[in-house]
Amino acid sequence: MTKYDGFMCNIRVRYQETDQMGVVYHTNYLNWFEIGRTEFVRELGYPYAKLEQAGLLLPVTHAELEFRQPARYDDIIRIYIRVAELTPLRIQFDAELRRMDNDEDLGERGLLATGTEPAGELLVRGYTKHVWVNKEWRPVRVSKLIPDIYQKLEKMI
Amino acid sequence: MTKYDGFMCNIRVRYQETDQMGVVYHTNYLNWFEIGRTEFVRELGYPYAKLEQAGLLLPVTHAELEFRQPARYDDIIRIYIRVAELTPLRIQFDAELRRMDNDEDLGERGLLATGTEPAGELLVRGYTKHVWVNKEWRPVRVSKLIPDIYQKLEKMI
Amino acid sequence: MTKYDGFMCNIRVRYQETDQMGVVYHTNYLNWFEIGRTEFVRELGYPYAKLEQAGLLLPVTHAELEFRQPARYDDIIRIYIRVAELTPLRIQFDAELRRMDNDEDLGERGLLATGTEPAGELLVRGYTKHVWVNKEWRPVRVSKLIPDIYQKLEKMI
Amino acid sequence: MTKYDGFMCNIRVRYQETDQMGVVYHTNYLNWFEIGRTEFVRELGYPYAKLEQAGLLLPVTHAELEFRQPARYDDIIRIYIRVAELTPLRIQFDAELRRMDNDEDLGERGLLATGTEPAGELLVRGYTKHVWVNKEWRPVRVSKLIPDIYQKLEKMI
Repeated sequence: MTKYDGFMCNIRVRYQETDQMGVVYHTNYLNWFEIGRTEFVRELGYPYAKLEQAGLLLPVTHAELEFRQPARYDDIIRIYIRVAELTPLRIQFDAELRRMDNDEDLGERGLLATGTEPAGELLVRGYTKHVWVNKEWRPVRVSKLIPDIYQKLEKMI
Repeated sequence: MTKYDGFMCNIRVRYQETDQMGVVYHTNYLNWFEIGRTEFVRELGYPYAKLEQAGLLLPVTHAELEFRQPARYDDIIRIYIRVAELTPLRIQFDAELRRMDNDEDLGERGLLATGTEPAGELLVRGYTKHVWVNKEWRPVRVSKLIPDIYQKLEKMI
Repeated sequence: MTKYDGFMCNIRVRYQETDQMGVVYHTNYLNWFEIGRTEFVRELGYPYAKLEQAGLLLPVTHAELEFRQPARYDDIIRIYIRVAELTPLRIQFDAELRRMDNDEDLGERGLLATGTEPAGELLVRGYTKHVWVNKEWRPVRVSKLIPDIYQKLEKMI
Repeated sequence: MTKYDGFMCNIRVRYQETDQMGVVYHTNYLNWFEIGRTEFVRELGYPYAKLEQAGLLLPVTHAELEFRQPARYDDIIRIYIRVAELTPLRIQFDAELRRMDNDEDLGERGLLATGTEPAGELLVRGYTKHVWVNKEWRPVRVSKLIPDIYQKLEKMI
C-alpha cells in the first residue's frame, strides 16, 4: 500500500455535491483533490491566495482519477495528498480520498510522517499535474520566484 | 397571470444539477435566472462578455425565489425574463422557470410580444436586483456609459 | 442589530466557488445557508442524513437574499442561522453570512446564547422557508413524526 | 489526428463555470464529457433518464483529462464523443472539447461520418470508463438487458 509523506485533511460531503444516483457526483472528487493540495501548501506556509497575489498560478495540465467506491452525503472524507514529482517548472500531486468513520475525524489535519498507513476506506485515487505560470500564463521557475516554497516542497518527496 | 414583454430561452437540466432527493438542487434555479438575463441582453445585441470587456459589471444585490415544483433531470426548462424596473444605476429582472413537454422546445428563443401567455408548467418564479458597477465596483450610470443598451432595455418595460 | 439565539459555524471559501469577477458566484451563498441549517440541526442531535433515512425531507419553498459585500476566495465565512418561524408543517430559517479575520475562527461552532452580537463583517443575509414532507413529497407534521426535534426547535425561537 | 465516428454537440460556457483565474474551473470539463455522452446516447434513441428508469446506471470508474487550453466565459464548446471500447459489461468514451468561432455553431449536433476532421481549437481531451450496473450497483450485461442499445453502440466503434 502506498506510503504518504505528504499531508491530510478532512471535509464533510455537502448535499449540493450529491446527484440523483444518491451518491457524490463524480466531478466533485477532482474539486476535493484541489482542496487537498491548497491545504497542503497552506500547511507549508503558503496560502494559495497569497501565491496568486504574488503573481503565481498553478493550473492543472493533466488529471487522472480511479473511482473505487462512491462517497455519500454527510460522509467525512479524508484527503491524502503528496508531492509525486517536482521540477522548477512543474509539479505532480498524488491524491487519495478515503471515508472515515467518526465525526471526530473531521477536525484533524497535518503533515504525515513517512510510513504513515492511510486510514479509512479507499474511495478514489488519482493525481493532477500542474505547471507554474504567471498572470500572463507564461511558465515561470518557482525555484527562482519563491525559492522557499520550492525547498519546502522538495523535502516532501 | 403575468404578461411577459421580455424574452425566453430554454435549457435542458444537467445530471450534475440534480441531488439525492431526485430533483434539481435549489441553488441551480438562481443560476438559470442568470442564464436567462444574459441571453436576454445578448438578444438585444450585448453579450455579457462584451459588457465586461467594456468595464461594466452587473452584480446581484437582491434575489427572491418562490419554489413551486421541482425540476427533474433531462427536463426542458423555459426561462422567461423581463425587465421589471430600470434606472440609470439599477435594474430588476423578473423570472419564471417553466417545464416544457417536447424536445422541439429546446431550440426556441426570442423576444416576446406584449400579452404572450407563458407556456409550460410553472416551477419557480422570482426576481433579481442589480446595480451597474465598473471594475472597481463603483456604481456607474449605464445610460451614460452605453446609452444604446439603456434605451433598448427601457423599451422592454 | 439582530440578536441570534440560533447557531453558528464556519466554512472556508473554495476556489471552485469563485467566478471571473474575482468574487464568490452568488448562488453559493444559498448553498452556505443550507450548510448552516444542516449543521444547526446536527447540533440538536439530528444529522440531516438521518432525517432523510427516517423519511423526512425539508425542501425549500421560498428564499430571499440580500447581497451586501462579496465573499472572496479563502475567506473564512461565519454562518449564523436561527429559527424564525416554526409550525408542525413549516419552518423558516434566517441566515447571515459574515467574513471573519483569523484562521482560528474556522473551527468554532455551537449554539448561541440569546443576545450574542454577531461577529465579523456582514456579507449576505436572508432566509429560507421550508415545508416538512415525506418521500412522496406529501406534507407531514414533524411534531408527530419526530416530536423530540420539534420540541428542540421550538426552544430555539 | 484522431478520426471521430461518434457524435458532436455544442454548449455555451456559463458564468458559473468560470473561476477567478478568468477561465473555466477545471472540473467542469469532466461535466461536459458527461453532457456529450448522454447527448450521444440520446441520439441513438436512449435518453439517459429513460435508461435510469429501466434500472440501468452507468457510473464512471476511471477518467483521464489532458488540459491544453482553457475555455472562457461565453465560448461555444464543441464536444466530440466516440465509443472507444465496448463489452457487455463495460464501455469507454473518448472525448475532445474544442472552441468554435461562431454563434451559429451552437445549434449543431449529430452523428459523425467516419473520417470527419474535428473542427475548432482543441482545449481538452480525455476519456471516461464506465461499468453498467443496476440500481443495487451490481454489474449487469447491457447486451442482455437492452440488446438494441448494445448493437447500436457496437456499430459506433
